[in-house]
Amino acid sequence: MAEELRKKVVIIGAGFGGLNAAQELSDSNFDVTIIDRNNYHTFFPLLYQVSAAEIEPEQIAAPVRLILRKFKNVKFIRGEVSRINYKEKTVTCLGEQIPFDYLIVAVGSVNAFFNVPGAEKFTFPLKTLDDGMILRNHILTCFERASFISDPIQRTRLLTIAIIGGGPTGVEFAGALAELVYGPLKKDFPELSKDSVRIVLIEGSKTLIGMFDERLSKYVARTLQRKGIEVRIGVAVKRIDKKGIILESGEIVETETVVWTAGVRGEMIPNDLRIELQPNGRVKVDEYLRIPGYRDIFVVGDLACAYHEGKALPMIAPVAMQQGRYVGDYLKKLSRGKRTAPFRYRDKGSMVTVGRNQAVSQIGALKMKGYFAWIIWIFIHILYLIGFRNKLFVMINWIFDYIFFEKSVRLILPRCCDNPMHIHCIARRCGENYSKKQSNVKARV
Amino acid sequence: MAEELRKKVVIIGAGFGGLNAAQELSDSNFDVTIIDRNNYHTFFPLLYQVSAAEIEPEQIAAPVRLILRKFKNVKFIRGEVSRINYKEKTVTCLGEQIPFDYLIVAVGSVNAFFNVPGAEKFTFPLKTLDDGMILRNHILTCFERASFISDPIQRTRLLTIAIIGGGPTGVEFAGALAELVYGPLKKDFPELSKDSVRIVLIEGSKTLIGMFDERLSKYVARTLQRKGIEVRIGVAVKRIDKKGIILESGEIVETETVVWTAGVRGEMIPNDLRIELQPNGRVKVDEYLRIPGYRDIFVVGDLACAYHEGKALPMIAPVAMQQGRYVGDYLKKLSRGKRTAPFRYRDKGSMVTVGRNQAVSQIGALKMKGYFAWIIWIFIHILYLIGFRNKLFVMINWIFDYIFFEKSVRLILPRCCDNPMHIHCIARRCGENYSKKQSNVKARV
Repeated sequence: MAEELRKKVVIIGAGFGGLNAAQELSDSNFDVTIIDRNNYHTFFPLLYQVSAAEIEPEQIAAPVRLILRKFKNVKFIRGEVSRINYKEKTVTCLGEQIPFDYLIVAVGSVNAFFNVPGAEKFTFPLKTLDDGMILRNHILTCFERASFISDPIQRTRLLTIAIIGGGPTGVEFAGALAELVYGPLKKDFPELSKDSVRIVLIEGSKTLIGMFDERLSKYVARTLQRKGIEVRIGVAVKRIDKKGIILESGEIVETETVVWTAGVRGEMIPNDLRIELQPNGRVKVDEYLRIPGYRDIFVVGDLACAYHEGKALPMIAPVAMQQGRYVGDYLKKLSRGKRTAPFRYRDKGSMVTVGRNQAVSQIGALKMKGYFAWIIWIFIHILYLIGFRNKLFVMINWIFDYIFFEKSVRLILPRCCDNPMHIHCIARRCGENYSKKQSNVKARV
Repeated sequence: MAEELRKKVVIIGAGFGGLNAAQELSDSNFDVTIIDRNNYHTFFPLLYQVSAAEIEPEQIAAPVRLILRKFKNVKFIRGEVSRINYKEKTVTCLGEQIPFDYLIVAVGSVNAFFNVPGAEKFTFPLKTLDDGMILRNHILTCFERASFISDPIQRTRLLTIAIIGGGPTGVEFAGALAELVYGPLKKDFPELSKDSVRIVLIEGSKTLIGMFDERLSKYVARTLQRKGIEVRIGVAVKRIDKKGIILESGEIVETETVVWTAGVRGEMIPNDLRIELQPNGRVKVDEYLRIPGYRDIFVVGDLACAYHEGKALPMIAPVAMQQGRYVGDYLKKLSRGKRTAPFRYRDKGSMVTVGRNQAVSQIGALKMKGYFAWIIWIFIHILYLIGFRNKLFVMINWIFDYIFFEKSVRLILPRCCDNPMHIHCIARRCGENYSKKQSNVKARV
């Protein structure tokens, strides 16, 4: 056995699923390689707070190498996997072939635009840390422009923010945004009267945060309305263009800022596997989270479509974490010749906050709303945030905010957006002006 | 008097000079407008620590509107002034004409490349917060690439960092960089042996930090060498290209990373004034910091060339701060019919740190080096940093670093660099790959 070559596990993605798998395998005999396009792990549940200028992007990101440093059998590659070659048992990354004995695909999900015309081109997604910063920069830039512009129609457009999608992300972002614009920004921009700012939350189905009990979802809608948000439920979006959102009814919501939180889908890496894809792009897996027909390829997290009591598991962090740990454990047992029971998801409940002192949580039969749910929400999020310094800084930010009604993080920084799709991003356009000016300087020298 | 229209003061630039002028005028009868291209004030003395992944960019930036919020007579515009029109007494900003009675120009300085071929195109400056982040992202990306690449020549290039300029910025950055690469990065990248990392500090004159006493400057050179930095003094740079630096001697320093801290120059805004410019672009001002021949146009900070005991004042923060306050005070006295004495600079000394427990300071005849100078350096920088939360977060970061030899801030975030000049920025190229991938995704959907 000691003479045997160590088996290689490649994990694609350093999100909740991939990182938990790597951690589980850290005391094993496997050589583990984890690959991610970023050199950091992002704590997505708080991403919306970056866009609402509540916390710094760095505070919800942790360097992957720092997390993995103590695990001697785990290596990190920063790069993108462009292909899985099952025949050769390699993945292609940065032009090289990286061999594996076992592969864990944990690449998460991408935005789903449901064929709404203009949605991909004219909306701001909230899916990556870059997205979070770009949206923050754009909203703050809109306020700066509005404070300067004399045309009232343009000003109204700049001060209208529409959010499509009444799931947890849309609801949490709407709540945080209201606290930003009616709190610190109101004080920062005395020249803009409160009434001219408009936040619209649009949800196609009949209820916000559909997975929650109706009583909780009504509480959330009421709370958001009391914060000054227009909550539009059961409203379908026809298309989005540079003017704003055109609803099925023909009504137009004129705005410079449409935030898209309406849905995500799976997207498998190009490969030579025989895979059964769900309509939403997720990969169907067996009860051991393997791709059916393969004993050595696992899918975990948002991309994996696993079933629990006949229902597909939701695309949320706790599922990914449990699945990552499960596959790690499965492989360790396998190497010792032991068998593992099929994967079972333990639902620890869900929670959503809509701002100061206000949250809902549903843990089994226990349903809570208000202050106590909010305290639990804070506790859980700090607990799961990676890195002591991140926990400390986020806590300090929240405490400051709670006491002083103040968010100090409202920098338009950096000024650039590198997504060529985003011709509508004001912060990007500003970057272009800046670059142009730089070139002028050069020409003049 | 009460009937009289309030006079308008326009301040261009929210750096040390502009902000101090605005604060001084906050209890006056003037209507003050301060204009800056950023919505934040940057604490430049710590910018190099952003590039060395020691502190977050947000921690040395403070939102201008937050700083000015309590001053009811001060307004902020985020934009760039493209022209000063003295005949109409307006400045042009974002296409509008903004009228003034008094104008304070406080736009700081820009990089000076002294006609070194390739310097502007192939080096990383350290002049703005964006520069700071771009350089950090680039250096960390170089390490990620080096950890993956098999070609030893390419790896050496990626792990060589050259700094041109042995002034305070170059010296402080070199010291902080050595602590980063031989500390946390060594632990993060066990696959890269320590010896393969090379830091070269190049200075054309015969001494580092020339404004300091020779004993202190020798101490600094010795300390940097002990940290593993190649200190090359009296070495002239012939040109810079994509290979690296070509020295006058013909020697080539092959590298992907050339940091330019060799000098700055003034750059006046286009205007219809009769101005005497110094060879380095600074504007000569009279003893009241006015442009000679004009009673209502002031220049403060790096752009102003004021004299003190026959010598031009240096382009440093304390000068800008004192000049800003002076002009504010001058205008207040003027409005009350009082006269002000000419501007006099009070030199409170200079200090430079080269890392943990190591700094030099020179306050009048008092020259210090080592631990005690370092404690003073820390105290002064925390004192002048704007914003309680910034002070707190920077302190916590420094304390963590001191105890654990650890810098938690090493994220390649965001992945973009919007400067079209910077074709050599690896972080930018990575952004391009990323965008390309995004488009592929789109094409496939």
